[in-house]
Amino acid sequence: MKLVRYGEPGAEKPGMLDGDGALRDLSAHVMDIADDVLSDAGLDKLRAIDPASLPVVEGAPRIGACVGNIGKFLCIGLNYSDHAAETGAAIPEHPILFFKANSAVVGPNDDVSMPRGSTHTDWEVELGVVIGTTAKYVSKENALDHVAGYCVVNDVSERHFQTQLTGQWTKGKSCDTFGPTGPWLVTRDEVPDPQSLAMSLDVNGKRMQTGNTSTMIFTVAEIIEHLSSLMTLHPGDVITTGTPPGVGMGIKPEPVYLKKGDVMELTIEGLGHQRQTVTEDA
Amino acid sequence: MKLVRYGEPGAEKPGMLDGDGALRDLSAHVMDIADDVLSDAGLDKLRAIDPASLPVVEGAPRIGACVGNIGKFLCIGLNYSDHAAETGAAIPEHPILFFKANSAVVGPNDDVSMPRGSTHTDWEVELGVVIGTTAKYVSKENALDHVAGYCVVNDVSERHFQTQLTGQWTKGKSCDTFGPTGPWLVTRDEVPDPQSLAMSLDVNGKRMQTGNTSTMIFTVAEIIEHLSSLMTLHPGDVITTGTPPGVGMGIKPEPVYLKKGDVMELTIEGLGHQRQTVTEDA
Repeated sequence: MKLVRYGEPGAEKPGMLDGDGALRDLSAHVMDIADDVLSDAGLDKLRAIDPASLPVVEGAPRIGACVGNIGKFLCIGLNYSDHAAETGAAIPEHPILFFKANSAVVGPNDDVSMPRGSTHTDWEVELGVVIGTTAKYVSKENALDHVAGYCVVNDVSERHFQTQLTGQWTKGKSCDTFGPTGPWLVTRDEVPDPQSLAMSLDVNGKRMQTGNTSTMIFTVAEIIEHLSSLMTLHPGDVITTGTPPGVGMGIKPEPVYLKKGDVMELTIEGLGHQRQTVTEDA
Repeated sequence: MKLVRYGEPGAEKPGMLDGDGALRDLSAHVMDIADDVLSDAGLDKLRAIDPASLPVVEGAPRIGACVGNIGKFLCIGLNYSDHAAETGAAIPEHPILFFKANSAVVGPNDDVSMPRGSTHTDWEVELGVVIGTTAKYVSKENALDHVAGYCVVNDVSERHFQTQLTGQWTKGKSCDTFGPTGPWLVTRDEVPDPQSLAMSLDVNGKRMQTGNTSTMIFTVAEIIEHLSSLMTLHPGDVITTGTPPGVGMGIKPEPVYLKKGDVMELTIEGLGHQRQTVTEDA
C-alpha cells in the first residue's frame, strides 16, 4: 500500500492510492496514518479495504508528511561509503546518531525556508524508515519485522549551524521545514529489499546526488538493531538513514549552497517524488 | 501553582497541589497538563479554580512526568562554569544543544534502568524549563514570557554511550528511563528568578552535587533566545539547562558510576524532590 496524509498543515486526513494512482479518502476507517495504524494488524485492516469502495479525493490537495504524531526523528550520519569519502570523514565504527526536531517535519512539496542568517543550507536525499511496532533489543535478523514502511526524506542541513555553532550536529538539522517526509508511506511488503533502491536529487533541474541504498555502511536492519539496543523505538518513530554523495558541501573546488528560489527534486525508486522551493524566513 | 500528573504510566491524570500540599484532582477541568493548558490563558483558567472545590486524591499514587505530550526534549550541555571546569572542557561560545529522546521521560520517582552493557551511567541534576507558548526568534528580554514553568530533571547519562559509540552525545542521553521529570510543574509566577535556585543531588545519602543556577554560563532567557533562532519552540517542549559540578565522571582520582540498587535524590529550591532507584535492563 501507498499511504498518504493530505490537507492543510496540522489537519491532514488519511488516504491511500488506488491501483490507478488516484488518491482515496481513508478517514471513515482511521483517524490518521499514525500510532497503532502502523502495526501489522493495523495495516492488515487497511489492506482488507477495497480501494474502489473509498471516496476519490477531488482536486490536488497539499500532501503532508506521510506519518502523523512522529515521536522521535532519528538520523544516521555518514552512512554511505561514497559520501563519507566525499566529506573526508572516516568510516564510522557504529552508526552515527543525531536527532532532528520533530517540529522540523513538513510535507514533501512544502517550501523549505532558510532560517535568518543562513548561508550554508544544503540538501540530503535519504531513505526514511517508519517504525510500526515497538522495538527494544531486537536483532538484525528480526529488525525489519518492526518496520511499517519506507518513504523519502530530505534531511535539509545548515552546515554552519551544524558544525560552527558550538557542538552537536542537531542545530543544523532541526530548523523549521528541514524535514520534508513523503509523499507516500510505502508498506514494507512493497519494498522487498530496502538495500537496493536507486535515489537521486536535482537542484534547479541539475542532477546533484545519484546513489543507491546498496552502498550503505550500516543496513536498515543493522541500524534498527543498534538503535534498539540504546532506546525503545515506538510506532511512528522515523529513522532517516544517511545520504549518498553529491551534497553541496562536497562540491569541488567550492561548496555550493541553496539560495532563495532554488528548487529541489528528490526521488527514491518506488517511493515517489518530492519537490521543494527554497524560501527565507522573514 | 504546582501542577502534577499522577497515576499509571501512559494514563496519568492532571492534578494540582492545594495550599496544604495535598494533591487535588483536576480531571474535571482539563484532560492533561499539556499543550494549550500550558499557555498563559490555559494556566489562568486553572488559577481561577478554588483548590478546595477539587476532589482530594486519596492514597499515594505514582507521580508521572509533570508535563504530558512532550514534543521535543532539548538539552544544554556544559552550561555551568564550575561543571565545565570539572570536565576539563572550554567555556562554550554558544549554548551546546543536544536532544534527549522523549521516550526517555519518566516520573520523578520511577526506577532508572541501566541499559544492557552499561558500566558508565551517571547523574545530572538540572533545572527544566517547560515552554508554554510558541517561541520563534524571541529576544532574551521577552523569552521568559514563553515559559509555562519550571521543574527538576535528572539528565541521566551513559558516558561510554555518550562519547565512545561514534559521534554525537544523544546516544548516552536517550536510553529509556533516562529522563525523570517533575514532580511538579511550578508555574513561572512562583519562580521570580530562575537564576537563583539552589540545587543538589545525593547518591545513597551522600551529597554529590551542590550548585546554584546563578553559575549558569547562559541564562534561561539566553538559551530560549538562541534555540528560538534555530527552530520553533512549541508548548510542551522541555529544555533542560545543564548541570552543576559533582557528576560521577568528574570525581578524582577515579570516576564513580551508578550500580544496581543505588538511590539518587535530587532537589531544586521550590521545585520539589526526586528519588530514583537504579535497576538494570533484563
